[in-house]
Formats: sequence, C-alpha cells, structure tokens
Amino acid sequence: MLPDKQDAFGHEINDYFINKSGFEIIERNDGFFTVGLGPSFYFLEHHEWQESEKEAIKYATGSVLDIGCGAGRHALYLQEQGLDVLGVDVSPLALEVCRKRGLKKTRTLSITQLDRKLGIFDTILMLGNNFCLVGNVKRARWLLNKFHRMTRDSALIIAQTRDPYPTTVQEHLAYHALNRKAGKMSGETRIRVRYKKHVTPWIDFLMVSKDEMKGLLEGTRWEVKKLLEDGHSLYIAILGKRGQ
Amino acid sequence: MLPDKQDAFGHEINDYFINKSGFEIIERNDGFFTVGLGPSFYFLEHHEWQESEKEAIKYATGSVLDIGCGAGRHALYLQEQGLDVLGVDVSPLALEVCRKRGLKKTRTLSITQLDRKLGIFDTILMLGNNFCLVGNVKRARWLLNKFHRMTRDSALIIAQTRDPYPTTVQEHLAYHALNRKAGKMSGETRIRVRYKKHVTPWIDFLMVSKDEMKGLLEGTRWEVKKLLEDGHSLYIAILGKRGQ
Repeated sequence: MLPDKQDAFGHEINDYFINKSGFEIIERNDGFFTVGLGPSFYFLEHHEWQESEKEAIKYATGSVLDIGCGAGRHALYLQEQGLDVLGVDVSPLALEVCRKRGLKKTRTLSITQLDRKLGIFDTILMLGNNFCLVGNVKRARWLLNKFHRMTRDSALIIAQTRDPYPTTVQEHLAYHALNRKAGKMSGETRIRVRYKKHVTPWIDFLMVSKDEMKGLLEGTRWEVKKLLEDGHSLYIAILGKRGQ
Repeated sequence: MLPDKQDAFGHEINDYFINKSGFEIIERNDGFFTVGLGPSFYFLEHHEWQESEKEAIKYATGSVLDIGCGAGRHALYLQEQGLDVLGVDVSPLALEVCRKRGLKKTRTLSITQLDRKLGIFDTILMLGNNFCLVGNVKRARWLLNKFHRMTRDSALIIAQTRDPYPTTVQEHLAYHALNRKAGKMSGETRIRVRYKKHVTPWIDFLMVSKDEMKGLLEGTRWEVKKLLEDGHSLYIAILGKRGQ
C-alpha cells in the first residue's frame, strides 16, 4: 500500500475533485522538471476527450480492466455504457475519488500485481499514456504474457503511448542518447510525480515509436490490430491476440 | 554572475518570450513543491495588471530603480511614460529579454549588490512581490538603510508583498509554526525555482503582514505612507522617508 507521503497522484486528484484546481509536477531522474497535464485532464468528460480516445473507447466490450484508472474518466464512461469495469490504480486516494464519483469496482494494485485472480477480461484499458507503465521491454513482455492469461481469446488491449522521437527539446534528445548508450531504448524514462509535499516512488515509463511497439510485441502473443493517431506523437494501438 | 544552469528564471522567461508557453516550479526547503504564476504573468500588459498595481505605478516618478525587473513589464511601461528606468535582475537571460523588448538600461545585479554608484533615484520599484526579496528582518533593515542613501529626500519605495497569515493550507501553517519555533518570522521562506534542468540558488523570501511591515520599518528611516490592498493576502505599501 502506497504511503500517503508517496500518494502525489491521489492528492492532486483529490484536491482537484474538491477545489477544481491543482497542478502536477514531473521530475525526471536527470534533474529535468516539467509540469504535466493533470489533474484537470484526468477529469475530462467524454465530449472533451481527444478524437482518438473517443474512437478507441468504442473497442471496449464486456468485462473491462482499467489499468491506472486515475480519477476514473474512462472507467466511469464505460460503466455508464453498461460495461462491467474494474478500475485499478496504485493510488488509494485516487480510487477513493473514483468511488465517490460512482465507480463500483476498484482495487488498489500496481500494474505488476495484476493476476488472473481478478477475473477474465474482454478488454484491458491503458489509455492516458498508461501503456508507458510497462516500463521496459523485458517487463512489457512479462506483463503482456500475463495479460494473455487474464483475458478471453477475443480480448483487446487499448494501449495509448507516445512516440518519443518527434521532439526538438534538446534535453529530451540528450536523455534518449544517454539511454541508447546504456543499451536501453530511447524512450525509457524514469520519472516521479510531485504535488505539494507528496512525491511518488520513481516510475519506469517506456515510450515507444510505432515500429518499436511492433518489435516489443515480438515474442508475445499479441499483435497490433489497429493504430489510431493522435497527431504529433501520441497514438493508440489496439492490440489483439495473434491468430484471432 | 549566475551560471546558466542556475538561471531558471531567465530560461522560463526567454522560452515564453519565444514560444508563448512555459511554467514555473517552486520548491520550498521543506520539500513542498508548487507551481508559480510565471512566466505568462511576467509579460502581462498594463491593462491586464491587478488594480492595485495600476494604482501603485502612478507613484513612480523621475529616476526609477526596478529591483528584480524580470521580463520588464513595469520597467517598460514606465520607460514608455518617459521615466528614466534602470532594470536590475540577477538573471542575465531575463535582462537579455528586457533589452530585446526595448528596455534601455539594465544591470545584472542581485538585491544585495545595489549601491550608490548606480545613481540617485526617486523611485524604487519592488512590485511582483519583490519586497519579499529583502529576505529577513536584519537584511531588510540593512537594505532599507542602503536604499535611503541611494535616493532623494522625496523618494518612494513601491513595495509589494504578501501577508502570510490568511491561508488555510496546512503545509504553510506548519511551515510558519516551525519558523516561529526557530525564532524566525512566520513568513520567512526559503525557496528555489526550477525550470527544466535549471534551478536557481535558494532564495530567502520574506512575507510580512501589514503590522509586521510597520515593525520591520522601525529602526529604519522609512515609513508607510499608503497601503494599497490587493484582496486576499497581497498588498502594496508605498514607503517614504520619515519626516517627508
């Protein structure tokens, strides 16, 4: 269980839920600081979503596992549509907000703690860039194989991520280069979120290009069924089981 | 001269000048992080200023020293009005932006480096909360006595600061209490600004209530001539020489 001191996500979400204001500070392990889209972004209503998100959510069916559900915007929308949604998140306070907003099924779990005991799903939702939570290639394949056993044959993973390459920010390009020098993928990024005195543990965040996504899926039993573009660098991959 | 690595203010201001976007992260020495108003705030035009700022700027006359001039919004306005304005700031890059925006006289100096060699002034401008840069009571009195020698008899200091007490933020109240326990004023705050990989040195930032401002001026040859309220907790004190 994440200690309250580390629940920066939960506190930014809870404060926004109460006061309709807030911020999200992102620290990278090379000392680069920036400001994230949250928390207002995590509360956007369906009509305010990116077009690609609206398109992607249509692929959700049946029993849905929303990984990193945050303030619950996707989970709540699908629950309203009559789907059976389980929202999981590492943040106890974010899940408390989800429940206050009406989400019926929640579990406080990190992505690595998910297993078959949670049920068998038709859809795994990794929107809001949550496919980045796979962390690195090795862990991504381990997780994808686990997800394979937690899902029906016709299941889909709705996976949003970011292509790290279309950037001109010098600090990002330098970070990519250091990663490659260390034998990592360019888009392997270690970050933590700060909010007031709260700071999350370091999070391994993997950004991949569309080609790298395909490479990552080699050696798993998933393949890209469809790509939905988000413009500049964001995109959503609809993953299905090979041979389905 | 501030090294580029420490010129977080300059970089946020310069990036905003070029791209019209940016952010400002403020770190307090107790591990509290928040997001500041800058950099867009530093570029506001006269018609966008707070009413109290518009009122306060009318007190500026003659030869003006703008301490911590930032992107130059106050200095440029007064220069356009025909006043003789010297903008000083610790950030070389901020001053470069000021010059690109048309400010004629700039000097890269911290508040403690100011002295009579810069000239004799009619007005000292410390808007944008820059009166907080006095740091602590002892340094404030030392600076105010120095400013006394750098100014004409009829000179005014236009000093904006914040009353620290009207807050319900628990972390701020706890910080105040620790300060008092250490024999400091409640509003003595040590902060630094982060922007991308740039981080300023720690800055001693003193917030005072209106009563504390009067106490601070005891033992100096300045007194409050007028108070302009900014609402909630910000206010501007027009300080003049005793007996004038």
